Amino acid sequence: MRKSVFLKMINKTAILMFCLCVVILNTISVNAEEKSLTIQERASKIFGEAVGDDNNGEVYSWGLTAKYKGPDELFPGEGKFKKLFSFLPAIRWYDPAHYYEPLSLVKGTFEGQECVLCHQVQTPGIVKDWKRSRHSKPGKTASMKDEEIVTCNKCHGNDHTKLHMPDVKVCGECHQKEVDQHKSGGAGSHTHSFHLQVVEQPMQLNTPAEELYGCAQCHGIAENRCDGCHTRHRFSPAEARKPETCGLCHLGLEHYDYEVWQDSYHGRIYQAEGDEWDWDRKLKDWTRPDKEGEKPAPRTPTCAFCHMPKGSHDILEASTAFTYMGSSQVDRGAPKHAEKRKQWIKVCKQCHSPRFAKDQLSAMDDIVNLNFAKVREAYEVVLDLYRDKVLDPMPEWLAPDWQGNHSFSLLPSGETRVYNVSNVERLFFEMATYQITNVYKAAAHSSSENTTYSKGGGIPMHRQLIAIKNEASKLRRLARIEKELGIQHIPYDFWSQGEYTDLLNGKNRKEGDVLPKSECLHDKDMPCLAD
Amino acid sequence: MRKSVFLKMINKTAILMFCLCVVILNTISVNAEEKSLTIQERASKIFGEAVGDDNNGEVYSWGLTAKYKGPDELFPGEGKFKKLFSFLPAIRWYDPAHYYEPLSLVKGTFEGQECVLCHQVQTPGIVKDWKRSRHSKPGKTASMKDEEIVTCNKCHGNDHTKLHMPDVKVCGECHQKEVDQHKSGGAGSHTHSFHLQVVEQPMQLNTPAEELYGCAQCHGIAENRCDGCHTRHRFSPAEARKPETCGLCHLGLEHYDYEVWQDSYHGRIYQAEGDEWDWDRKLKDWTRPDKEGEKPAPRTPTCAFCHMPKGSHDILEASTAFTYMGSSQVDRGAPKHAEKRKQWIKVCKQCHSPRFAKDQLSAMDDIVNLNFAKVREAYEVVLDLYRDKVLDPMPEWLAPDWQGNHSFSLLPSGETRVYNVSNVERLFFEMATYQITNVYKAAAHSSSENTTYSKGGGIPMHRQLIAIKNEASKLRRLARIEKELGIQHIPYDFWSQGEYTDLLNGKNRKEGDVLPKSECLHDKDMPCLAD
Amino acid sequence: MRKSVFLKMINKTAILMFCLCVVILNTISVNAEEKSLTIQERASKIFGEAVGDDNNGEVYSWGLTAKYKGPDELFPGEGKFKKLFSFLPAIRWYDPAHYYEPLSLVKGTFEGQECVLCHQVQTPGIVKDWKRSRHSKPGKTASMKDEEIVTCNKCHGNDHTKLHMPDVKVCGECHQKEVDQHKSGGAGSHTHSFHLQVVEQPMQLNTPAEELYGCAQCHGIAENRCDGCHTRHRFSPAEARKPETCGLCHLGLEHYDYEVWQDSYHGRIYQAEGDEWDWDRKLKDWTRPDKEGEKPAPRTPTCAFCHMPKGSHDILEASTAFTYMGSSQVDRGAPKHAEKRKQWIKVCKQCHSPRFAKDQLSAMDDIVNLNFAKVREAYEVVLDLYRDKVLDPMPEWLAPDWQGNHSFSLLPSGETRVYNVSNVERLFFEMATYQITNVYKAAAHSSSENTTYSKGGGIPMHRQLIAIKNEASKLRRLARIEKELGIQHIPYDFWSQGEYTDLLNGKNRKEGDVLPKSECLHDKDMPCLAD
Repeated sequence: MRKSVFLKMINKTAILMFCLCVVILNTISVNAEEKSLTIQERASKIFGEAVGDDNNGEVYSWGLTAKYKGPDELFPGEGKFKKLFSFLPAIRWYDPAHYYEPLSLVKGTFEGQECVLCHQVQTPGIVKDWKRSRHSKPGKTASMKDEEIVTCNKCHGNDHTKLHMPDVKVCGECHQKEVDQHKSGGAGSHTHSFHLQVVEQPMQLNTPAEELYGCAQCHGIAENRCDGCHTRHRFSPAEARKPETCGLCHLGLEHYDYEVWQDSYHGRIYQAEGDEWDWDRKLKDWTRPDKEGEKPAPRTPTCAFCHMPKGSHDILEASTAFTYMGSSQVDRGAPKHAEKRKQWIKVCKQCHSPRFAKDQLSAMDDIVNLNFAKVREAYEVVLDLYRDKVLDPMPEWLAPDWQGNHSFSLLPSGETRVYNVSNVERLFFEMATYQITNVYKAAAHSSSENTTYSKGGGIPMHRQLIAIKNEASKLRRLARIEKELGIQHIPYDFWSQGEYTDLLNGKNRKEGDVLPKSECLHDKDMPCLAD
Repeated sequence: MRKSVFLKMINKTAILMFCLCVVILNTISVNAEEKSLTIQERASKIFGEAVGDDNNGEVYSWGLTAKYKGPDELFPGEGKFKKLFSFLPAIRWYDPAHYYEPLSLVKGTFEGQECVLCHQVQTPGIVKDWKRSRHSKPGKTASMKDEEIVTCNKCHGNDHTKLHMPDVKVCGECHQKEVDQHKSGGAGSHTHSFHLQVVEQPMQLNTPAEELYGCAQCHGIAENRCDGCHTRHRFSPAEARKPETCGLCHLGLEHYDYEVWQDSYHGRIYQAEGDEWDWDRKLKDWTRPDKEGEKPAPRTPTCAFCHMPKGSHDILEASTAFTYMGSSQVDRGAPKHAEKRKQWIKVCKQCHSPRFAKDQLSAMDDIVNLNFAKVREAYEVVLDLYRDKVLDPMPEWLAPDWQGNHSFSLLPSGETRVYNVSNVERLFFEMATYQITNVYKAAAHSSSENTTYSKGGGIPMHRQLIAIKNEASKLRRLARIEKELGIQHIPYDFWSQGEYTDLLNGKNRKEGDVLPKSECLHDKDMPCLAD
Repeated sequence: MRKSVFLKMINKTAILMFCLCVVILNTISVNAEEKSLTIQERASKIFGEAVGDDNNGEVYSWGLTAKYKGPDELFPGEGKFKKLFSFLPAIRWYDPAHYYEPLSLVKGTFEGQECVLCHQVQTPGIVKDWKRSRHSKPGKTASMKDEEIVTCNKCHGNDHTKLHMPDVKVCGECHQKEVDQHKSGGAGSHTHSFHLQVVEQPMQLNTPAEELYGCAQCHGIAENRCDGCHTRHRFSPAEARKPETCGLCHLGLEHYDYEVWQDSYHGRIYQAEGDEWDWDRKLKDWTRPDKEGEKPAPRTPTCAFCHMPKGSHDILEASTAFTYMGSSQVDRGAPKHAEKRKQWIKVCKQCHSPRFAKDQLSAMDDIVNLNFAKVREAYEVVLDLYRDKVLDPMPEWLAPDWQGNHSFSLLPSGETRVYNVSNVERLFFEMATYQITNVYKAAAHSSSENTTYSKGGGIPMHRQLIAIKNEASKLRRLARIEKELGIQHIPYDFWSQGEYTDLLNGKNRKEGDVLPKSECLHDKDMPCLAD
């Protein structure tokens, strides 16, 4: 329950009646004066609260009388658009190779056991993790000599003023095969998740740096670091065989992979029995007979078992046709993709008959394809609104996009936007990005409930299709009425401006924010966004 | 993050500017020509993408230029409406008695150990499951002789060209008591979940087969097979005592049973401590004192403990008044249901005082009944819109229902539809089906948060009631304005047609799709839908 | 799937066609007569179902022809408003000091072992819990003599006709330090969660008692009883170190604390490995080196580790600036709060470098502050609608609030309401209460996905901002059209009345429901709501 309301009331009841009067008075006249005031000034006047910066430590009801100053520091992006998009400083932990600068008050050069000695006091938690890790245990492996252990300095360096944050390159010094596999994935793989091509995508270029941070955490760590999946400083392979590891990023409304798997038979069995299984066993050994006295191997496939067959770190080895998380359509069962389909059936065949697997995969194809018919039906409704100029507002009345244009947000070959769009465009965006993706995810991971209802689901898509048609009908009825009356509807100012809207990259774009193409740093095999 | 947008842009930037021009040009003229084109043809023209079948393996942005062909094969339903509704082929795994046909490339007749030998290589996972099951251990039970074990052929047969998928009948050969209990439940029980009466319900008859698949998986397996709860080939009773088993089907927005239990004290304690408990202990022994050295019995009730008291497989033994998952109203505390209420208090009394139990159950009654007042308030608003003919659209402007009529979707004694309805009817449907059900589920499973807020909740019902009134107000204001102007509002075509809408059963109904009543196969004690 | 529809149809198909005719006939004439009927009478007429009380045990489709009578008994609130708000009887279990009255059919006075003997049969579950608790084990502690154990009578009394439900006072007899810490927290702490100041908050005063029950369970138990966190009758400290304990109340759309933590690295590691850790170890010992043979200490912080540092039961020791769950804005990184920020960095430093911690906390500040810019942008849109009198409806056309007034629901210094508001006010309420709170919660608990997308999220706030602007545009366009036509829009009756709306406290307020100020029982240091 919100305590706020009551407590605020206590502090302010005295002024409440006064405020009510002020509000009523304000509504009668002073509109002209009001128009020149910011919401901060207006709210301050109405509610008797001081105006100030967000950053001064005062408490503001709903933030009403504060102004947002922005972060103290921003780190520039890379490439041709580097002045247009930027990151919060915390990006250094997720892309250390580009952004990390050592900073240390401690001077000196240390050997591993000295690090441990001091950090046992300074940051005891990570020392405990390391002590439980394979790195702290002497042993003979391909890359380690007898009795040698991997201490702090091996990954972070010895000079405390020049410490570095290890990325895949550092881990690759010992774990070359895994890093090579990681790096061999193409578009859609982990190793491309923080590439310029992804980071520069229009949705991000439209958005302030503060809103990129959540994105950057998952996208950055997945490409650049190994401890995204093998959490530091324990670096356990067993951990990464469990679904929770993948579920750190592969969750939520943009792709409910983790949740729909948890809601399937595979997931439910894991939840019920997983604590009895032998997670130290390598993926390739899960289906061999258990030996006498051995803990049983996992009984259900986890993310890694299917998507990293035999432990390969190239996640695309077991992929199907790439469709941008499922938001583009493809028939995965078509002859064109027969080879990949066969591979999947082989994965399923470790426990299921090929016929069962084929039936389930065919059902997935049919369900996904049927739901794409809803997407098309909805798109036609929205496209016609655009054609007939009855969107409210039409693009020209919105804030400019990051390119400085006023574009329709739903050109399939162009830009899509999540904000700075009209209501019906947003409804379609949700359907064509999140909903259809999640129907695919639910069907692919055999969650019958979610295929139909909840996280994914044909029924929520029904809902969205009705909402889109309803909005379309309202827009058309209003337009017809206005035409009849000779009213020229001018979309209201709030569509193109406001304290938040004014922070969008398109609004703040200046001459020179886009650099000559020569400044691009994209992969050779991938054309530049600037093309 | 959507990589799609960026990557598509890369591939297609060259045509982007061209497209923009085309779009603008299109909006100026050619509307007449456009009207005769499908969205596929229009999108193809506008976006420069080829039109093709879904099933050809090409990737289509949002599926825009593909056409849905439907599944290659469909299995007919049963009874009077068998030509009107149908299933995807994968139905054979969920209703094997009706749909399973053996198909095998392997010829020959085999004994159990031969099966195991070969399947250890072919499908090693299930062999491991079987080896950990009671079936693989020799022992003396009512139905097994000394040293006898239950091998593959016992359930699937010996002739590899005539294998069958076991259903409850096969399991009943040894587990007769459990199957008899399963089969003794009446309407609302597992054994009726895939009966014709349920399968033929109007919501399904309105919907293409592809959207029935998720439904059929849960409804089919729950009625026809035992491995819905005791997963194959381990068939563990311990598994079915845990909530995850039930949570495979009893979850999600149509009935958040699993989630609200997990969010209750019972669920939280299970999550925190469940791995320490003795799940091999029979339900009837959970409350007896633990013996010296024994693992402790489960400390909280799970689904099975309350709903299958002492292990009975007739789930209705512990039921309350049947209200179609909670969507119809009944006062469970009324004298009429005193016997059932008493029984529930006896269940609670194993840990709680009868007074505590009574108070909680009374609170549930009051909360559910109060929220039904919201349902009625909303229904009155919608009914008046129907009466005053201001629904947008009125039923006659929608696609026909499966009976070929244009009916109001909210006749409580008749048909309800989830799609092919106006926006305000859908808002009411959600309130009267999902929301009120989940208020009941949350209160019945003692999840205080969900009773009020999240999965269930009086506050989301507040939201829906406001949304319904808001929509009603808009419809009435528009109607009044149009009347004033002499505008006759004709609902737009998109309400009755579109690529998806054209797939509905009502649109495709042909002469003879409904057979003579003599073809009905309903239970004798249940009248036929055709009546 | 809803079985309801089909089964109802079976029972009622005979009358369906008849009903349809009746509906159609009704729509043509009898509107005048209809207006004098309740929805119960109208529905009864239309659908041929009997009208009756909710409480008679009949099943009503959607509750349509039932009338809500309200609970049989209500318990009055306290203080000046005690006649205006009330509780269901079950409140006695959550605030026993005020509401519990012993009631027992058993007469006599019993010693502990006698209680156990009988309750082993009567309520065996709790006896088992007690037997596994520390209370049942003899031992020497500050408050227990050698060989003494804590039996039932110690907490509940000996006379079975005068039993009491123990609250913090009773537990404090032995656990004084913990109860003192619990009681020392100020506003925002557990010990204030059921104080009059909170219970009387406007949202609750607007709402019937039935809707307070979910609230009262969490708020009551957290303030008054220890078994909210150490569940009876095991009373385990280990339990309360796990996140599930806190997750009983700290979950759901009003504050997704539990879920966002579960979706962070901390949570995922807990889910994957938590069953291997030593939960019996005190919080203050988690970071010391594990001893030889010891189970490892928890590897990730749980709720208690950060928010109850070293085990303190004053939850505010580790708090930041109080902002009513995050719904008011403050810059937690401002110099003003430097001391608290330093303390948090110290918490993080047990595993992370101070620089890492600082970066993460700064990112949280920036993300939260940016999203408050959206709140302000939205508020300006809504405030202008109010000023221009185009809300539909304006406050004067709604039901009265609990004070008997018709107030704007979004005075930040005054009242906010979740119901009995116009649609756009409700949209803003959700943004300014739930969404912004959850952005803060997600960022504070390091859930990157939820910071952006799902439970919390800048992207859902985008959605809400568009929805608010869309609604504003519609309201303004309609108002302009009506003005042009000379139509005076009178909001429809359904905004101010209806079966549920008529149950609101404001509608039922009578002379004398607010007592003289002398009847107030508020804390001395907190002004009375009546001021």
